[in-house]
Amino acid sequence: MKKRKQGGFAPPIERVAGNGLLHRRALLGSGIVFAGALGTGASLTGAAAEALIEPDWSLYPGAVTPAVQTPSKYEKELVRSLSNPKGDPRTQHARTPHQALNGTITPNALHFTILHSGIPDIDPAQHRLVIHGMVKQPLEFTVEDLLRYPMVTRKHFVECGGNSAPLFSSEPVQAPVGLLHGLVSCAEWTGVPLSILLDEAGADPSAPWMLAEGADSLKVSRSVPMKKAYDDAMVALYQNGEPIMPGNGYPMRLLLPGYEGNMNTKYLRRIKVINQPAMTFYETRNYSPLLPDGKAYRFYFVNEVKSFITRPSFGMALKAPGFYEISGIAYSGSGAITKVAVSADGGKSWGEAAIDTPVTPKAFARFRMPWRWDGQPATLTSRAWDDSGAVQPLRADFVAARGQTKEPVKSPLAFPNNHYNSLTAWGIDGKGEIKHVYA
Amino acid sequence: MKKRKQGGFAPPIERVAGNGLLHRRALLGSGIVFAGALGTGASLTGAAAEALIEPDWSLYPGAVTPAVQTPSKYEKELVRSLSNPKGDPRTQHARTPHQALNGTITPNALHFTILHSGIPDIDPAQHRLVIHGMVKQPLEFTVEDLLRYPMVTRKHFVECGGNSAPLFSSEPVQAPVGLLHGLVSCAEWTGVPLSILLDEAGADPSAPWMLAEGADSLKVSRSVPMKKAYDDAMVALYQNGEPIMPGNGYPMRLLLPGYEGNMNTKYLRRIKVINQPAMTFYETRNYSPLLPDGKAYRFYFVNEVKSFITRPSFGMALKAPGFYEISGIAYSGSGAITKVAVSADGGKSWGEAAIDTPVTPKAFARFRMPWRWDGQPATLTSRAWDDSGAVQPLRADFVAARGQTKEPVKSPLAFPNNHYNSLTAWGIDGKGEIKHVYA
Repeated sequence: MKKRKQGGFAPPIERVAGNGLLHRRALLGSGIVFAGALGTGASLTGAAAEALIEPDWSLYPGAVTPAVQTPSKYEKELVRSLSNPKGDPRTQHARTPHQALNGTITPNALHFTILHSGIPDIDPAQHRLVIHGMVKQPLEFTVEDLLRYPMVTRKHFVECGGNSAPLFSSEPVQAPVGLLHGLVSCAEWTGVPLSILLDEAGADPSAPWMLAEGADSLKVSRSVPMKKAYDDAMVALYQNGEPIMPGNGYPMRLLLPGYEGNMNTKYLRRIKVINQPAMTFYETRNYSPLLPDGKAYRFYFVNEVKSFITRPSFGMALKAPGFYEISGIAYSGSGAITKVAVSADGGKSWGEAAIDTPVTPKAFARFRMPWRWDGQPATLTSRAWDDSGAVQPLRADFVAARGQTKEPVKSPLAFPNNHYNSLTAWGIDGKGEIKHVYA
Repeated sequence: MKKRKQGGFAPPIERVAGNGLLHRRALLGSGIVFAGALGTGASLTGAAAEALIEPDWSLYPGAVTPAVQTPSKYEKELVRSLSNPKGDPRTQHARTPHQALNGTITPNALHFTILHSGIPDIDPAQHRLVIHGMVKQPLEFTVEDLLRYPMVTRKHFVECGGNSAPLFSSEPVQAPVGLLHGLVSCAEWTGVPLSILLDEAGADPSAPWMLAEGADSLKVSRSVPMKKAYDDAMVALYQNGEPIMPGNGYPMRLLLPGYEGNMNTKYLRRIKVINQPAMTFYETRNYSPLLPDGKAYRFYFVNEVKSFITRPSFGMALKAPGFYEISGIAYSGSGAITKVAVSADGGKSWGEAAIDTPVTPKAFARFRMPWRWDGQPATLTSRAWDDSGAVQPLRADFVAARGQTKEPVKSPLAFPNNHYNSLTAWGIDGKGEIKHVYA
């Protein structure tokens, strides 16, 4: 339990880096730093405080409770951005609006989805999962069968290999954080550890690969190393407590924590244990991009450590100098986040952010940094570390290794390359307006 | 990383308690126990495994992606049970369908709500929170003000004091687990620690109470000990990542982790620091029930340690003998769950369940117990412990202390009393049908 403190008499919180970044202990439940100096709350007289406003909703009974509740009509940002809003018969990307969210969970309604041939309308009573190939005994499972199996519940992000692709542009693309980074989301997944099913079928211990295939009409399929299958892979049936939503793989999907989204086969209907990769479309074409030296970036599965600030961010405006919390998301496909640093001067100086606990592997970590804006131009950016020793690369180093476009990219929907995990920076001008910048 | 094992050659898992309960290490990713003995997956020939079914959804492109996705049309159980389905002008309870869920998160659409005067349709631009009374400086906050403040993200359950009330009946009420226990849900909440706002207003350190009041037309209000306000209370703005839904207090609510739901004031518009409890309706009438000795159970806030099995449970049927996972929810308003025991013989013998990690205070913990049903009658029940030393009381002890009804209660919607936290048992007959029983 925190010690109870009285306001207004404690020493000021030290600044830890340039342009007004404060020590993260300012967040630790002690309001001392904000007394007077913050002043975002308006002072009232005692009499004015008693005279509460009485809008209609405080005077008349409200609406009838629905069986399934939905967000307030005032929350117009709680929609995913569609890359193909008319639903033409081609790939559709639906991006998570991170600018409107906080915490570490993405609601299922807003979890990103990418569908290459529409959303299959699968009857769970008819769906089957088959495990075959290099196994002692091929097996077939219904949903009802799997509901009898041992399950695990774990929080994990899923990220498209193409997430953040606009940041390969030679000039910063001006768009909200949900358009730049909206192809990553985080949920609590529940399902059957894949190792149990492979063991039951008697998978050949010498087999190095498996092929996972979906029941969608395109039958999206990917080769998966058996080492990952026996590590933390699961056949997921529930997402944030309820059965997986149709765009995310209902009634079951493969979950490969920290591996690029496309490998997390939705509508999973088949696992074939094989002795070499199947060289499917999505591992030889889409996810084998060319590197600057002309070689292909192939079988590169892990979503590397990344972070970005969601608030304040592009499209918001700071209305007055004073205190603001800088907050964002950090995650890594190779482990748990151990540290996030934030800069308000474009990377010249850094302060360590607070991270909400518990921090778990291959899941969103929400970081928070106290900041006092003095009304002058500032550039906010963040950088993350994980417990495997990986660190988010600075942009100059990343571009040297992985390249950028020759001409500026015009649309946040473009995919010039894959697996961008360098920094994102927001430039704030003297009026408080926020643009996407490279720092 | 788990050690890779080959199926079918390991020794059998020991039984830890009567009627087929197995040691929880059977869940630890090793499928050995299930090989052959489980056999819920159907064996196929290699040729049959190659001949996959091709329903329409595997042959033709699927549906267009919506901006906001919703559950599959096949998931008809994903609705809350309404106590007042016609929406008459009185209290409305909407209960979470735990029988259809798994994991620890309740999706916002299905989070329980209780509304006494409907759902207020609050414009967040007009809503105000005032802090006044025994403070140095009364303050008023808009939503936009609070979005600049330091926030925290934590997973907590909220439970109505009247949850599980049907179990006060002298005979077991026959109803699904979501009707018996559906007035508890668990979400990841994000908001401003209340201590920061109280400190900014300069709350009088000698004041023992505060009054929290909502902006709904009934202005539901409760007295809250200042000790709780300075401990882990928050003014919550986000629920599972997105702004709180209207039935749960949009645009802001008081969150008092582990304290009965009614005190977690929705639509929070006022906190008045006071020197004695305000004796409001909901603390003098509804939540001051009579004990068997004629005294009132007053100012009793904490939701005590509880657990119940959600699968298998009332309304499901076991179709054949063999392996089943027994799974349920445990939680405590006084700390973190440390142990859950499960019995398959109505409490004669117990085995310790596995609990998904991380387990956090005042939040759902999902427990899992491997079980091999032999086709004979069995009685499943669970019992939980927390890190404060509290243990879920056995029914005989609970009834002796807190009473039960003289006549059997007929409806799961009745509220004969509050704060039931004893056991729940499911009786399974030789056909696999499941009833609610007292064990």
